[in-house]
Amino acid sequence: MAEARQNDPRATLLASAPLRMGLAAGLTGFIHANGWRIRAHDHWVDHDEEYYFTRIVWEFPDDISSIEVRERVDASLSKDQQLTWQLWFDNQPTRIAVFVTREMAHLYEMAMHCISGLWHAEIAMVISNREDLRAETERFNLMFHHIPITEANKAEQENKQLRLLQAENIDLVVLARYMQIVTDKLIGPFQNRIINIHHSMLPAFAGAKPYHQAYKRGVKLIGATSHYVSEELDAGPIIAQDVAPVTHRKSVEELVQIGRQLETRVLARATKLHVEHRVIAVSGRTVVFD
Amino acid sequence: MAEARQNDPRATLLASAPLRMGLAAGLTGFIHANGWRIRAHDHWVDHDEEYYFTRIVWEFPDDISSIEVRERVDASLSKDQQLTWQLWFDNQPTRIAVFVTREMAHLYEMAMHCISGLWHAEIAMVISNREDLRAETERFNLMFHHIPITEANKAEQENKQLRLLQAENIDLVVLARYMQIVTDKLIGPFQNRIINIHHSMLPAFAGAKPYHQAYKRGVKLIGATSHYVSEELDAGPIIAQDVAPVTHRKSVEELVQIGRQLETRVLARATKLHVEHRVIAVSGRTVVFD
Amino acid sequence: MAEARQNDPRATLLASAPLRMGLAAGLTGFIHANGWRIRAHDHWVDHDEEYYFTRIVWEFPDDISSIEVRERVDASLSKDQQLTWQLWFDNQPTRIAVFVTREMAHLYEMAMHCISGLWHAEIAMVISNREDLRAETERFNLMFHHIPITEANKAEQENKQLRLLQAENIDLVVLARYMQIVTDKLIGPFQNRIINIHHSMLPAFAGAKPYHQAYKRGVKLIGATSHYVSEELDAGPIIAQDVAPVTHRKSVEELVQIGRQLETRVLARATKLHVEHRVIAVSGRTVVFD
Amino acid sequence: MAEARQNDPRATLLASAPLRMGLAAGLTGFIHANGWRIRAHDHWVDHDEEYYFTRIVWEFPDDISSIEVRERVDASLSKDQQLTWQLWFDNQPTRIAVFVTREMAHLYEMAMHCISGLWHAEIAMVISNREDLRAETERFNLMFHHIPITEANKAEQENKQLRLLQAENIDLVVLARYMQIVTDKLIGPFQNRIINIHHSMLPAFAGAKPYHQAYKRGVKLIGATSHYVSEELDAGPIIAQDVAPVTHRKSVEELVQIGRQLETRVLARATKLHVEHRVIAVSGRTVVFD
Repeated sequence: MAEARQNDPRATLLASAPLRMGLAAGLTGFIHANGWRIRAHDHWVDHDEEYYFTRIVWEFPDDISSIEVRERVDASLSKDQQLTWQLWFDNQPTRIAVFVTREMAHLYEMAMHCISGLWHAEIAMVISNREDLRAETERFNLMFHHIPITEANKAEQENKQLRLLQAENIDLVVLARYMQIVTDKLIGPFQNRIINIHHSMLPAFAGAKPYHQAYKRGVKLIGATSHYVSEELDAGPIIAQDVAPVTHRKSVEELVQIGRQLETRVLARATKLHVEHRVIAVSGRTVVFD
Repeated sequence: MAEARQNDPRATLLASAPLRMGLAAGLTGFIHANGWRIRAHDHWVDHDEEYYFTRIVWEFPDDISSIEVRERVDASLSKDQQLTWQLWFDNQPTRIAVFVTREMAHLYEMAMHCISGLWHAEIAMVISNREDLRAETERFNLMFHHIPITEANKAEQENKQLRLLQAENIDLVVLARYMQIVTDKLIGPFQNRIINIHHSMLPAFAGAKPYHQAYKRGVKLIGATSHYVSEELDAGPIIAQDVAPVTHRKSVEELVQIGRQLETRVLARATKLHVEHRVIAVSGRTVVFD
Repeated sequence: MAEARQNDPRATLLASAPLRMGLAAGLTGFIHANGWRIRAHDHWVDHDEEYYFTRIVWEFPDDISSIEVRERVDASLSKDQQLTWQLWFDNQPTRIAVFVTREMAHLYEMAMHCISGLWHAEIAMVISNREDLRAETERFNLMFHHIPITEANKAEQENKQLRLLQAENIDLVVLARYMQIVTDKLIGPFQNRIINIHHSMLPAFAGAKPYHQAYKRGVKLIGATSHYVSEELDAGPIIAQDVAPVTHRKSVEELVQIGRQLETRVLARATKLHVEHRVIAVSGRTVVFD
Repeated sequence: MAEARQNDPRATLLASAPLRMGLAAGLTGFIHANGWRIRAHDHWVDHDEEYYFTRIVWEFPDDISSIEVRERVDASLSKDQQLTWQLWFDNQPTRIAVFVTREMAHLYEMAMHCISGLWHAEIAMVISNREDLRAETERFNLMFHHIPITEANKAEQENKQLRLLQAENIDLVVLARYMQIVTDKLIGPFQNRIINIHHSMLPAFAGAKPYHQAYKRGVKLIGATSHYVSEELDAGPIIAQDVAPVTHRKSVEELVQIGRQLETRVLARATKLHVEHRVIAVSGRTVVFD
């Protein structure tokens, strides 16, 4: 994690609640009262909805265990019925399951960030509906699970996926151009914990072959959108978006390539924001403390 | 025009034709044979369609009139039945009609570029369906025509617009948030000479209030697209596009404002490209020699 | 101002102080205690320096005058010796003096934002060392002061400038390509209230003709930086920066033009941030609540 | 290579010469006369220097060897004393030597592009002055050469590097945060074939710890520049540049991280442009046919 440069362990709290007096003071006061040192503190108030969102990072001495810190936070915050909160510790890296089919770029990008320590995360497993990326996965000493999906076995295979995710205490699922639609069976237990990436054009093109359509309209920008997966296809809360400029000189194949590289970058940005506990999803959109 | 810094007059040729041997050599050879000096020469070949597009800018001595240059070009190029070409001279600024309703930002932007000489163009008239911008138009000593449109009088009023455009030898119509749909009556005679601007989001939002929808989805980018007007609404050849980054902190009103300023910038960019004769529209897309 | 869409008057507070318990709660508590409604509240803590920065916008009923609001704020906050604060009301637009020489683009941009009401500001005067922009200034019904500067009269003429600024209660000076160096005589009384713009390249080019040098190195980006003016030339706190992409196809003249348009955009962005009271300058850098 | 989607082999020619009549027609005429099919053809004329630059890609039937194509090109073009040209075939991937020290991100990025076939290139070896990245290199089954450098042995070790590069027919050297200065001994034989990356700020900061200086000035953009290595340090022809936006919220450590990721992206972009034979370096700048 970017901020974790000190020796002392760190905790990160994401919290939200209906706005009311003393809310922020209560949270920071509790941390101060324990003698802990706040290292980052951001907030946002939705003044239309009168709702408060915050992210607080603090250091605590290493003679207290993270279990005890969690107990103290729980004892203090659970009294507040209206407060929704989550707590993480930097001695517990985010455990990621990457779902792939044939594209290897996302896997390389994420493996590099995890292995180098740039992300406070580890790829606990790679799940694929095909065998294509087994060798590439094993290159990074990662576990590869081949779970082929047919129309007939989809429900059963998703159960298998779910059992694997739960057995390995997966925190986050990243769909890295996994060419299958994920259903409620996974979305339910992993609400706002499955990240997807898809291309997006200005204007949008309905139907098949979006890059062919984009070429035919002569678009000057190719876009990509990364979002949490919701039950409505490609309509979940957006985490990150970006575009790349293109010209009439680019062929359809080059547009596809430019789009793919952009998607890798945007998916990595969204995953990093999630892994650093900077994202709160609420009412179909995200608050991103960047 | 950016390149017109020399004292000698300049001609700009845009041409396209089915690709064949000797095409480029013929064009540049003709210019050299006249003793004229090429200042810029760009081309693009669509190798799938086997089609050639080029833009050539040259200087000629001021003891030859632009009429004579045109005659020589005409005599040389008109022999080639397959060649489509257009020729402009920098002693003839592009004459622009700006269609407005209530937004003044585009008018200021374009007035500044024309008055300062940055664009080789002049605003020959402002046409509006409302009176709102009369004073702002007259501030720049520009002609303001109020042509109110109702369902009943639309056909008749479009005839009036067309007569004005033709009487004043208008080269280019810029729809600067003109809140009326322009019909075939104008589009026909001004094919690829009417530029429009509209917002565009990733993903696109169908229906009304796109900024409200964009806010609700928590988009991280606001976009704008400028294009030539075609008979199908908002589906003409795209000239320029850009995006502006936004965050959850921005209200709907702020998104609208950010979008408006982006639109001003993108419309100005598209108009500049047209005024500098850098755009060839073909088969629903544009070749932009930037 | 983007947020001022309600009918009730608004106040904006920028404040900073050494970090300590209860600081934020004290500020928001005071506003709540008066029964006023917070519309925006952002903060940033510099955890290395243990320093707190905040921006709070609130609405108050129009049966209280802004004078009374200021008195209550003053009574409450002035007790705190360590707190630095500033307060603005949206019935008092920021009064801007624009210093120009020959370039008119910035003037058009700012006039448009002020006249349209997009910025909560007014151009109270234009000061120039030359006569060139008198007509353009008067086009917008703005006061134009010609104050020519020579080596001999510089001190005296700066006194004259200062008297004008003070007589007209100027809040902000914008140097819009004013081709004179401003000295301590103005910088002193207008600390962090004079905004300048200059080009900036990657890499930087020392000496004269930076665009010629940039062309010769074949830079792919042209940059612009807007900052508060400090006594060390071009070294004041940076407010906004941006770049524009360029290619080998652009001549020196085109690079200059692209740079100028970028500068207009970046200077407008910086001025808007200041006018919306979003910037706190501290220790040579800025905290920008965007 | 982006364009190499057809089954027929392809040749890419980069050529430049003093501008004169018939130059372009001669080149394309020669290709047509052989019955080969042009797939991409771009050019640029420096009208100030009267110099012509071009890139032509064509397909030829697979019953002709690339050796024979080269002989025909050589026979045709070598008659022209003033023409400088280079020819590549897509059955001969660019052989890259990557020089590293401790940073692994560039290696992952380049390995992914080469292994996936996205780049028409192969990493023939990794050279390092340290052992740190041996395991990461071998993960991709690449040859790792540890060549430690001291002040005493630098000349001798550079000879060793040079022998390795020549023995393995290296086309391109990429300095991927190699923490040693490369001298004329390598630059001479690899003129415009050594690519480097470095951070660049607006404004530039002389001396040590540029990110600390950037933080202290509160820059809003972090930049990176990739260029060919010339004898003057960091002054070679620029190939690609980009920036990333930052805010006051980012610590020095985060600025460093953002800079590193940007550098990875810009170095990859520059290397891709070189590998696709899109870059001609001339007089200290580059012509990039993108």
